[in-house]
Amino acid sequence: MTLIETTTRRADTDAPLIAPLIERWSPRAYDPAAELSEQDARTLLEAARWAPSANNLQPWRFILARRGDPAFTTIHDALMGFNQAWADSAAALVVNVAEVADDAGTPRPWAKYDLGQAVAHMTVQAQHDGLHTHQMGGFDGARLAEAFGLRDGLEIVSITAVGKVGDASALPEPLREREVAPRSRKPIDELLITAA
Amino acid sequence: MTLIETTTRRADTDAPLIAPLIERWSPRAYDPAAELSEQDARTLLEAARWAPSANNLQPWRFILARRGDPAFTTIHDALMGFNQAWADSAAALVVNVAEVADDAGTPRPWAKYDLGQAVAHMTVQAQHDGLHTHQMGGFDGARLAEAFGLRDGLEIVSITAVGKVGDASALPEPLREREVAPRSRKPIDELLITAA
Repeated sequence: MTLIETTTRRADTDAPLIAPLIERWSPRAYDPAAELSEQDARTLLEAARWAPSANNLQPWRFILARRGDPAFTTIHDALMGFNQAWADSAAALVVNVAEVADDAGTPRPWAKYDLGQAVAHMTVQAQHDGLHTHQMGGFDGARLAEAFGLRDGLEIVSITAVGKVGDASALPEPLREREVAPRSRKPIDELLITAA
Repeated sequence: MTLIETTTRRADTDAPLIAPLIERWSPRAYDPAAELSEQDARTLLEAARWAPSANNLQPWRFILARRGDPAFTTIHDALMGFNQAWADSAAALVVNVAEVADDAGTPRPWAKYDLGQAVAHMTVQAQHDGLHTHQMGGFDGARLAEAFGLRDGLEIVSITAVGKVGDASALPEPLREREVAPRSRKPIDELLITAA
């Protein structure tokens, strides 16, 4: 059994970042016995809820399903590629939905940006609460939109697996290798744009 | 002199959120004497840098200008509406840029969502470091893109004012009132989509 410790996956930085930021990473090996309590689920939603947004429009919606719920199976069945091979061990799947247009069809240009902030708040809080998260972009959005009856203007942007880290040796091989690969990011100099 | 204490602007929730999430709010009154140190600026960029992104593409870029830098004036001059009336007291302005398409023109559909996460990481870290942030959507993006020579595919999504909370009584009246208005969010039930 191979449990990949959070401490071995810390961000490679000397900056004094808060623990949930420095320790956060995106595992694929989840403990298939761990559950997400009602209280923990509510705390995650509260973290998202208090994120900032353009004109405080809060253009974020969520579908939260625990392993064992019919909705969990619906979401899992819509995952693509390798995601199906591991995400069934997560304690919950959260579908992250941006309100890109309101009921009347008026666009909300900051919806995806604001949703990203709300999900970041959720993942940072999860990390603090001893949970891990892994966001996925590979899924059949049209199928999910139909299954959950989403109106026009609600767009599924990502799906977050939430759970406790589990046995990495249970992962299929290409994923097992990725689970322990060094974490990397561009250097700060490549992120900074300076005056022309 | 009216300093609005962070404690009076806490999120109205009983959930055990981490301090930077529960205490974060978006002031407009900044201390015009406070400065952002090189070390603090670097820490904010490191917080953003380690955010997750689709395929680890890190589609975020930043322009960071301190009060007194020529670039600060360039950015401030492009702000719209009431933003110009208060943002000049911020210690720094950070232009948040999404790489919505790469050099070859290939779209990056998660760019704004991922940028939102990176900026959220930055604001949460700032809050922990005793700094406040206020993100703005009102600015002349075309003017800034030209001033900083942004290539096609780089889109300015928001501008963050960073600084220390200052004297709220120095704000013009409509803003002064907003500075102390109760914070509000939709209830969780309105954010949740359940199975159809």
